[in-house]
Amino acid sequence: MADVVRIIGIGSGHPDHLTSEAADALSSVAYVVAASKGADDPLLAVRQELCDRYGVELVAVADPERDRDAAHVEKQSDYDGAVRDWHAARVAAYREVLDARPGPVGFLVWGDPSLYDSTIRVVEALGVPYDVIPGLSSPQLLAAAHGIVLHPIGRPVLITTGRRLAGDVAAGHENLVVMLDGRLSCLELEDPQEWQIWWGANLGTPSQRLVHGRLDAVAEQLESERTAAAAAGWVMDTYLLRRA
Amino acid sequence: MADVVRIIGIGSGHPDHLTSEAADALSSVAYVVAASKGADDPLLAVRQELCDRYGVELVAVADPERDRDAAHVEKQSDYDGAVRDWHAARVAAYREVLDARPGPVGFLVWGDPSLYDSTIRVVEALGVPYDVIPGLSSPQLLAAAHGIVLHPIGRPVLITTGRRLAGDVAAGHENLVVMLDGRLSCLELEDPQEWQIWWGANLGTPSQRLVHGRLDAVAEQLESERTAAAAAGWVMDTYLLRRA
Repeated sequence: MADVVRIIGIGSGHPDHLTSEAADALSSVAYVVAASKGADDPLLAVRQELCDRYGVELVAVADPERDRDAAHVEKQSDYDGAVRDWHAARVAAYREVLDARPGPVGFLVWGDPSLYDSTIRVVEALGVPYDVIPGLSSPQLLAAAHGIVLHPIGRPVLITTGRRLAGDVAAGHENLVVMLDGRLSCLELEDPQEWQIWWGANLGTPSQRLVHGRLDAVAEQLESERTAAAAAGWVMDTYLLRRA
Repeated sequence: MADVVRIIGIGSGHPDHLTSEAADALSSVAYVVAASKGADDPLLAVRQELCDRYGVELVAVADPERDRDAAHVEKQSDYDGAVRDWHAARVAAYREVLDARPGPVGFLVWGDPSLYDSTIRVVEALGVPYDVIPGLSSPQLLAAAHGIVLHPIGRPVLITTGRRLAGDVAAGHENLVVMLDGRLSCLELEDPQEWQIWWGANLGTPSQRLVHGRLDAVAEQLESERTAAAAAGWVMDTYLLRRA
C-alpha cells in the first residue's frame, strides 16, 4: 500500500511553469494518480505529457459524477454538501488504487494546491501522510500575463468565486480576483461602467486568451474570447475586477 | 541603454523554488539590477548567489532611504505618499544604471511580482518595456509548509497587510492572509481565543519557522519564533488567520 503522498502544484501544466522542486518531486514518485473525465479528457492529457517527460506511470481513475446543478444553488450549505459528496466518492476511488500499489504516489494539481482545489482534503480523508509542493496559481499567471500588480499600493485583494461575486461587491469590495466562475458572472454586475477588468483564460497554455478594459466596453469581447478559448476542449478563466 | 526589462519572481530565493521559465529568463539577461541596503545585506547575498549560479552579473544599487516612520501613520494617504517618494528615488537610481548599460536587464523579485512588490511600478516609471515571469508567493509557501488550503470550501480569502488587519477584522472578515506585517499585528486583536493562526517566517529558507494554533495559546511562541527567525539577519513573516 502507498504510504506517502506528494501533492505537486503544476501551475499551467506547461513544463516551464514547474519549479525545480516540483520536477524533483514528480521524478521521485512511483506513480501518479489522476482523475479522468473520459477517454479524451484534455486535462488528463497534459498530466500524461508531464508524466512521460519525467518517466513516471500515470494511473487514471474515472472521476465520480458531480452534481453540477449544485454549482448554482442559492444556499451555501447545499453547495458545500454537493462538494463533500463528490469528495467522498473520489476518496473511495483513490483508496482502491493506493491499497493495491506501493508508493510514494504523486497527485498533480493545476495551479497551486492552496486555492480552490480539493486534493489536500481528499488526501487527508485517505489518511495517508503527505507533503505539498507549491505551484504557480492562476491569479499569478493572470497578473504576469497582464504585467500588473493585483492591488493598489498597500490595499487588499479579495480572492473569491464567481458564485459569490455579487454578494462580495454588495459588501463593498472594490478589488477582487474571481476564480471558479463558469459563466462570466461579472457581466451581471449592475454598474459595469464603474469597473476595470483584467481577464484571462487557459493561462500559460497555447489556448491562452487575455482581455483588459472597462467592463461595459469589453463585455462582448469577453464572451467571444471565452468561446475561442473553449476550442481547446476546456476553459478555465480568472479575472481581476477593480472599481475605477 | 537597456531597452527591455525582465521582472523575474524568485519565490523564496532558493534555486529549487524557481520555475524553468524563471531560470531561463535569468540566464537570458545581460545583467541584474538589485537594491542594496548595505555591504552585508543578506537579501542581496541571495540574489548574488542566484546570479552566480546562472553566470549573470549583478549590479547593486544603493537603496534610497525610506521614511519608515510612515509605515505606521494613521492616514492611508500619508503612507501612500511616503511609498511614492521612495519609489521615485529608486527610479532615479535605476535609470542611471540602465542609461549606462545595454540590456536586456533583469530585476529579481522575492515571492511573486503581483503581491506587495513595487518592481512593476518602478519599471513602468522607467518607461522601458518589460515582461513578468511569475514566482511562488509567500502565501503559497505558507500554505504548502502547513499542508493547508487558504480558505474553507468555496469561501473567499482576503490578502491584506498588517496595518489594515484591525480594520479588515472589524469589517467582518473571518479568513485573512496577512503580509507586510512588521510587528505581529494579530496579537492586538481583541478576541485572540476566537482565531486560529498558521504563521511562517522566512519561508522556504534555512531560517524558516512555523507556528500553528489558537492565537491566544501560541502568542508567546510567535514572539519567540519571530525573534529566532531574525537571527538570519532579516525576517519576513506571513500568516493565515481564520475565525474558529
